[in-house]
Amino acid sequence: MLRGDTLNTNASWIAKKLSERGMDIYKILVIPDDVDEISSSIRESDEEIIIITGGLGPTPDDMTRKGVADAFGDVLVMREDLLDEMREVHEVTKDAEVMAQLPSKAVPLKNPVGSAPGFVIGDGNRMVFVLPGVPEEMKAMFDDVLRHLEKFGKKKHYVAYIKTAKPEASIASELNEFVRRFPSVKLGSYPKGEQVYIRLSSRDKSELERAVEWLKKQIE
Amino acid sequence: MLRGDTLNTNASWIAKKLSERGMDIYKILVIPDDVDEISSSIRESDEEIIIITGGLGPTPDDMTRKGVADAFGDVLVMREDLLDEMREVHEVTKDAEVMAQLPSKAVPLKNPVGSAPGFVIGDGNRMVFVLPGVPEEMKAMFDDVLRHLEKFGKKKHYVAYIKTAKPEASIASELNEFVRRFPSVKLGSYPKGEQVYIRLSSRDKSELERAVEWLKKQIE
Repeated sequence: MLRGDTLNTNASWIAKKLSERGMDIYKILVIPDDVDEISSSIRESDEEIIIITGGLGPTPDDMTRKGVADAFGDVLVMREDLLDEMREVHEVTKDAEVMAQLPSKAVPLKNPVGSAPGFVIGDGNRMVFVLPGVPEEMKAMFDDVLRHLEKFGKKKHYVAYIKTAKPEASIASELNEFVRRFPSVKLGSYPKGEQVYIRLSSRDKSELERAVEWLKKQIE
Repeated sequence: MLRGDTLNTNASWIAKKLSERGMDIYKILVIPDDVDEISSSIRESDEEIIIITGGLGPTPDDMTRKGVADAFGDVLVMREDLLDEMREVHEVTKDAEVMAQLPSKAVPLKNPVGSAPGFVIGDGNRMVFVLPGVPEEMKAMFDDVLRHLEKFGKKKHYVAYIKTAKPEASIASELNEFVRRFPSVKLGSYPKGEQVYIRLSSRDKSELERAVEWLKKQIE
């Protein structure tokens, strides 16, 4: 991904799933396969919830387990229960056993379509979900993540879109006036081809409706 | 992008361009339209070179100019020369004039296909390139970036791929042995569908050739 060979479809898929449930995504980060980089990125983050994908396989470039353990001052332990489960599906070579090593404080997440288990680990400050990078495996495990996250999804926000064929520059003064008039409504403006998509969102449904009505009138 | 509406094709495109020229990409970051977030992300970065796309338009959610200026302790100044150039192409409304405001220490980068100019700004520690988010505009300006970057692209590295239909778990011991034998060759293992792609790279061409030969023999 850092070489541009692969599009980050996991990040968009996860962002969409969470947005649909009224959760705001604050940051998307792609970092190299490096233990210190993984652990420091977690430690330096201000977020309550972190979702990581990738680096759970059996090969030497798979460093996520160790990086996450380090971030929590934890150590990896061999989970014999997970190893047994892996063996039920197919033979597990000596080197592939690392996939069953999780941070001691982690709770495993089942992977119904692949061998590497995921896990969730947390302390008082944050909760980190760790899922495989293979999109089918990540997606198959995401319902589990959503179940854990349910309590964070309460603050529903409302969204409206206005589409216009006018260039952004010609409606900039209306949009500036808008942010002064409706400070509680978040505005984003996204040119795509010949159209501009204006996204308005708010926790207050009736304020959003007033805002949409006002802006439509200004732009027409 | 943080809501999963849009894939980050700019990041992959840029990463590919730089990788092809032997430059390593260290981190890809997607952050919200927020002045403090933009400036602190720049200040906290350890990198020599930062390339930013997006947030150069005329609407109130376009905050990149201000964020970058803040990061360098700089202020925005109206560049009358750029304003004149913009006016040559089409009428510039009062609110759209912000697009000609750049940090005082910035050097503008021409945008041949849109109105928002880009810029480059640097101090002794780092160099930040700022390009529009619209992919056609960003791409049209990227040759300019590459010209500035030429001096960083000297350290060519060599790359080889090995493809195998064996599952990752079954070749993990060979890969572990590989990293012990060839410490100067970087290894990445990427499962895709039924195949595993093993990427090997090194600054030392003949060492890479020895490594490829050895690993092919082990895996077959």
